[in-house]
Amino acid sequence: MSNSFGTLYRITTFGESHGEGIGVVIDGCPAGIKLDRAFIQQELDRRRPGQSRITTQRKEPDTFELLSGHVDDLTTGTPLAFWIPNRNVRSRDYDHLAQAYRPSHADYTYQVKYGIRDHRGGGRSSARETAARVIGGAVAKLLLRQISDIQIHAWVQQIHHIQLETEPTSFELTTDYAFAVKCPHPPTAEKMYHFIDQIRKEGDSVGGVIACKATAVPPGLGEPIYNKLEAALASAMMSINAVKGFEVGSGFSGTFMRGSEHNDLFYMEGERVRTQTNYSGGIQGGISNGEPLYMRVAFKPTATIMQDQPSVDEAGNPVVLKGKGRHDPCVVPRAVPIVEAMAAIVLADFMLLQKARTIN
Amino acid sequence: MSNSFGTLYRITTFGESHGEGIGVVIDGCPAGIKLDRAFIQQELDRRRPGQSRITTQRKEPDTFELLSGHVDDLTTGTPLAFWIPNRNVRSRDYDHLAQAYRPSHADYTYQVKYGIRDHRGGGRSSARETAARVIGGAVAKLLLRQISDIQIHAWVQQIHHIQLETEPTSFELTTDYAFAVKCPHPPTAEKMYHFIDQIRKEGDSVGGVIACKATAVPPGLGEPIYNKLEAALASAMMSINAVKGFEVGSGFSGTFMRGSEHNDLFYMEGERVRTQTNYSGGIQGGISNGEPLYMRVAFKPTATIMQDQPSVDEAGNPVVLKGKGRHDPCVVPRAVPIVEAMAAIVLADFMLLQKARTIN
Amino acid sequence: MSNSFGTLYRITTFGESHGEGIGVVIDGCPAGIKLDRAFIQQELDRRRPGQSRITTQRKEPDTFELLSGHVDDLTTGTPLAFWIPNRNVRSRDYDHLAQAYRPSHADYTYQVKYGIRDHRGGGRSSARETAARVIGGAVAKLLLRQISDIQIHAWVQQIHHIQLETEPTSFELTTDYAFAVKCPHPPTAEKMYHFIDQIRKEGDSVGGVIACKATAVPPGLGEPIYNKLEAALASAMMSINAVKGFEVGSGFSGTFMRGSEHNDLFYMEGERVRTQTNYSGGIQGGISNGEPLYMRVAFKPTATIMQDQPSVDEAGNPVVLKGKGRHDPCVVPRAVPIVEAMAAIVLADFMLLQKARTIN
Amino acid sequence: MSNSFGTLYRITTFGESHGEGIGVVIDGCPAGIKLDRAFIQQELDRRRPGQSRITTQRKEPDTFELLSGHVDDLTTGTPLAFWIPNRNVRSRDYDHLAQAYRPSHADYTYQVKYGIRDHRGGGRSSARETAARVIGGAVAKLLLRQISDIQIHAWVQQIHHIQLETEPTSFELTTDYAFAVKCPHPPTAEKMYHFIDQIRKEGDSVGGVIACKATAVPPGLGEPIYNKLEAALASAMMSINAVKGFEVGSGFSGTFMRGSEHNDLFYMEGERVRTQTNYSGGIQGGISNGEPLYMRVAFKPTATIMQDQPSVDEAGNPVVLKGKGRHDPCVVPRAVPIVEAMAAIVLADFMLLQKARTIN
Repeated sequence: MSNSFGTLYRITTFGESHGEGIGVVIDGCPAGIKLDRAFIQQELDRRRPGQSRITTQRKEPDTFELLSGHVDDLTTGTPLAFWIPNRNVRSRDYDHLAQAYRPSHADYTYQVKYGIRDHRGGGRSSARETAARVIGGAVAKLLLRQISDIQIHAWVQQIHHIQLETEPTSFELTTDYAFAVKCPHPPTAEKMYHFIDQIRKEGDSVGGVIACKATAVPPGLGEPIYNKLEAALASAMMSINAVKGFEVGSGFSGTFMRGSEHNDLFYMEGERVRTQTNYSGGIQGGISNGEPLYMRVAFKPTATIMQDQPSVDEAGNPVVLKGKGRHDPCVVPRAVPIVEAMAAIVLADFMLLQKARTIN
Repeated sequence: MSNSFGTLYRITTFGESHGEGIGVVIDGCPAGIKLDRAFIQQELDRRRPGQSRITTQRKEPDTFELLSGHVDDLTTGTPLAFWIPNRNVRSRDYDHLAQAYRPSHADYTYQVKYGIRDHRGGGRSSARETAARVIGGAVAKLLLRQISDIQIHAWVQQIHHIQLETEPTSFELTTDYAFAVKCPHPPTAEKMYHFIDQIRKEGDSVGGVIACKATAVPPGLGEPIYNKLEAALASAMMSINAVKGFEVGSGFSGTFMRGSEHNDLFYMEGERVRTQTNYSGGIQGGISNGEPLYMRVAFKPTATIMQDQPSVDEAGNPVVLKGKGRHDPCVVPRAVPIVEAMAAIVLADFMLLQKARTIN
Repeated sequence: MSNSFGTLYRITTFGESHGEGIGVVIDGCPAGIKLDRAFIQQELDRRRPGQSRITTQRKEPDTFELLSGHVDDLTTGTPLAFWIPNRNVRSRDYDHLAQAYRPSHADYTYQVKYGIRDHRGGGRSSARETAARVIGGAVAKLLLRQISDIQIHAWVQQIHHIQLETEPTSFELTTDYAFAVKCPHPPTAEKMYHFIDQIRKEGDSVGGVIACKATAVPPGLGEPIYNKLEAALASAMMSINAVKGFEVGSGFSGTFMRGSEHNDLFYMEGERVRTQTNYSGGIQGGISNGEPLYMRVAFKPTATIMQDQPSVDEAGNPVVLKGKGRHDPCVVPRAVPIVEAMAAIVLADFMLLQKARTIN
Repeated sequence: MSNSFGTLYRITTFGESHGEGIGVVIDGCPAGIKLDRAFIQQELDRRRPGQSRITTQRKEPDTFELLSGHVDDLTTGTPLAFWIPNRNVRSRDYDHLAQAYRPSHADYTYQVKYGIRDHRGGGRSSARETAARVIGGAVAKLLLRQISDIQIHAWVQQIHHIQLETEPTSFELTTDYAFAVKCPHPPTAEKMYHFIDQIRKEGDSVGGVIACKATAVPPGLGEPIYNKLEAALASAMMSINAVKGFEVGSGFSGTFMRGSEHNDLFYMEGERVRTQTNYSGGIQGGISNGEPLYMRVAFKPTATIMQDQPSVDEAGNPVVLKGKGRHDPCVVPRAVPIVEAMAAIVLADFMLLQKARTIN
């Protein structure tokens, strides 16, 4: 259960960073969805390591095999299984970590929870698992494409102190941004890129914020009390490695407003009920209202840094960890397709769920 | 499913604001837990309306009936059902809303999702449902008390622009704070109280932030990938009415730090592995590390205000909504026990789950 | 979880035989279903004790209160809660059982599982819990009535050695049978009735078989591998008190046939694909094929008898149990509406699930 | 969800008969279980086709790859994934079935449910999926071996009219029976073998009954109301291809007994509460009582026969199906390890669940 996500459209992932590979089973995808392999690969490529100087130098082609669930790339309603073999494994980089706990990693907690762990590259706790999510999200997008007009776009809104100041709606949201930082505003992106590169040279790391918007979401998605749309999205996003915060609509900044400012007033746009503002972020009472979904996700700075750090080992002895191995000085750019994937999985799930909630 | 929360310790709530009452079924509570009725009532009283000038004037005693699941107030392992009858219902206050959509409420979204809604007092979408959560949380606390040393405390950290500046750890956390705003720092609490009262007089509303801390959480709680401890907590908190944001540990502020600052360095405190800082908020890789859990929850300003607002009705006609009825100018103080309750439910659930995850 | 059944149409029951009462929460019932209270009461009356000489003399009116989930008896999509207060409780009848284990009851297993039990009338393990199922099934029938033409009928096919020999299809299936044994063939019913009455006088008990048929089930219901329609039905029926066996279609008798006899050959009836025989019982590969669902459920003889029986008490001492209290010499007739209810819940659940499984 | 089984110990299977292969993800297996690869292979070999003249001549080595979840064959608590590539695929045998519906197969129901199907070898509906269950069961047995003394044995009790008349307890239950029919009584096994071989020569098929016994099951397993031990076992067994009936303890034959005969009287065997008889089949009130679990599973005759049969095609035209391809004249012997596997999965799941149900 801990490795599955979703109710009716459900992904189950498996695999480790330095094991045989990473896989995902997608159960509940309806029959008749065209599996566009090029699109799925393109989504994986957006997350793939080794894209530029500011990402880890691990070179993984991340090419997938489709093991089941289709006839001639058309889904049959049976579970889809995908498999990405690991290629560029350098486990010896991690030999010195067999006993030591890296700070702000999952080494200690896995050890105390399970009494055993695969220390190579973080094992199961590695962000390599997110490749499986990206596939789950790519298929969800293909499903959404066939049953709705929903469009999902995420982008980097902040890297450390560098913020995207202008309204994100004024940019053309796309999947291919300049400067490999996936910020839609080129001058800001350039600043972010050079800042990350500088941090990399210092052997340090930074975090940031990803914003995500979904348009053309039909009103009515989400459950009213515990499986609220924002609760499902929060659970999805908080399950991504390094995420420490989530907000929807006005989020934390809305706490500085008054009700008379914050209320989204209804009006009619032709036949359609709209709101004049969207502090609600497209969700009211746990249910989509037809306005764009808008959320923000906070990523902490990467825990792996290229600096010496004191720690302890499994026996409780003090050790000094040397900064070694390959890593990302900032995971935020590579996390953009992951945020989109999790949003797509949630929306696909709720689209199916909503069909079961109505009698007509 | 949408009205249930939890896996092994599971609550299912039912009832409406102006219907017969509100109820909760608690399934999965182990046998042998002493049901301290006075404690449960005390928890309900912390959430109860009509406590002071700054909360809604609806007078509900919120006294509960225990319908099943015990022998002489000792749990038997069978489902506990609690029932809180509604007493002080003034549904006529809502007659003018039968057709109109209140801004930033769930009126429109329920109508579009279900094609029918109980407009009286918000029906199911009313925060009155949270009384049921408080009972679920009170029983979870009683369970935690019997199987652990876990202590959970939430408090008001921010009301609009008024922040609790000092370290919350320097206060004695309790369940009974001065000034009815549930902020542990009396001078700050007094400022908050008067500000809310002022806002009330203006017919307006404000929001704020609740912080929550759980101490003595054993390391090892939480699932590694999708049912991460922070993901479950996020889902729990984002399911509370008016919540727009959630963060754990450093949260959004951590995005302004470098890895070398943010990493929580391990050291030994006797036999125990500790961290020097706690930017992780007590969770690493989805699993508790033994440090205090720390999280923050953002509440938007109450949608109901005592001012005229333009809106539309079900037929799409423009209407003007008059500010009428009883409401809270700020829901944050009354939400403190709700945040604690949801945290308790999550922790009780993971304590049970962890027992099933180990073979010894 | 152990007290809930169903995925999208889900019931959660609570309450004990000699506690305050019995309740059920129905979550997932779509909005817009007309709650016919008279029909629900009529279904309860079919299960009610004290109907005739051959059922327990406990007199329970089994009148229900509807606590939530509707506006003017029209469902709103929010959880329905029903409550049946216990009236005719004679707990003193059970005082002698506080320590002793009744044979073939759940006394010993509850004690060993939970370390505590409500011994009065069997507590939670009493068949009184099935009143809650009947309500869950009644609402499911009302839902099915609005979204399909499905008709569900169960009847007594065997009491001890007395079998209904003729084809059940030759009778008009109804909800109101002569002789209180709910067998559609009056001469057989009369025999059954007098046999049960004779057994009652001897202080003994008997069991039997209930058959159940559902017609106009659309093809396509059921999941292909683990949530097969027959698996869900088996789980539903085996969860009823005293049930020891389940079969669908040819069942155990099909093991005496050859494939060439047993295969249900397809043919066209106009536009519709039909089968010449129905040994499959309306299900192939876990999925309904449009033929009538047909299943049979085996009930053991009632464990409570009016005879002295040796047993042991909690301390391990030998005791002799006296036959006391009120009981049914044969539970089978009263179980007919329960079998129908569980079938209705399964079918309602799968009707909703199937909507979520298709993209058109 | 439809391709997953279990709550805490959960298998998710994928793959098709004539696709790339068959796989299973096992989630929830605790850390520290020794994965005995030879044992897992041995379990697969018991199910493997091509073992003798009376099973299908498809030659599949059924060798598995272990893709994740372990360090040096010790489980780490992360999901185990297994993969069995298909080798001996002769899909052309099925070309004539692309449009036609085979009687009593899932061809028609898959077509009507999904609108598309993989007709080659039955696609997902093929019993080849059960190889994945056998792996799930083998790991469950390894888990049970480490945390309990539970032993699970299934055997063939009936093939068509040939019954094992003597008490099965009088045989030494094993995993390796003579005559490939997996009946523990050699003379009966020999009769069964020759009968199946005769049926095979006639191009026909037969079914039968498998009995299954689990010993040393600790009392207390099972949930009291809807997830009763017998309900979970019934769901597990009824999900196996070709199964039409399930009974526990006295089952259908118990309906011919009186309560005074059927009640299992308690007595003390030293410190242990025992019953004199075991008509309950080791389960009372949904919970194990410490006596051996005993259940029986009915298998219909194989639907595929080597005889011409009339049918219809997708367009509704009458067709004659020729008996072609490779098949089992009787699936019952090969289903013995599958029945054991499903029993092991249920018991492993309930062993873990029971740990979460108690506070000590």
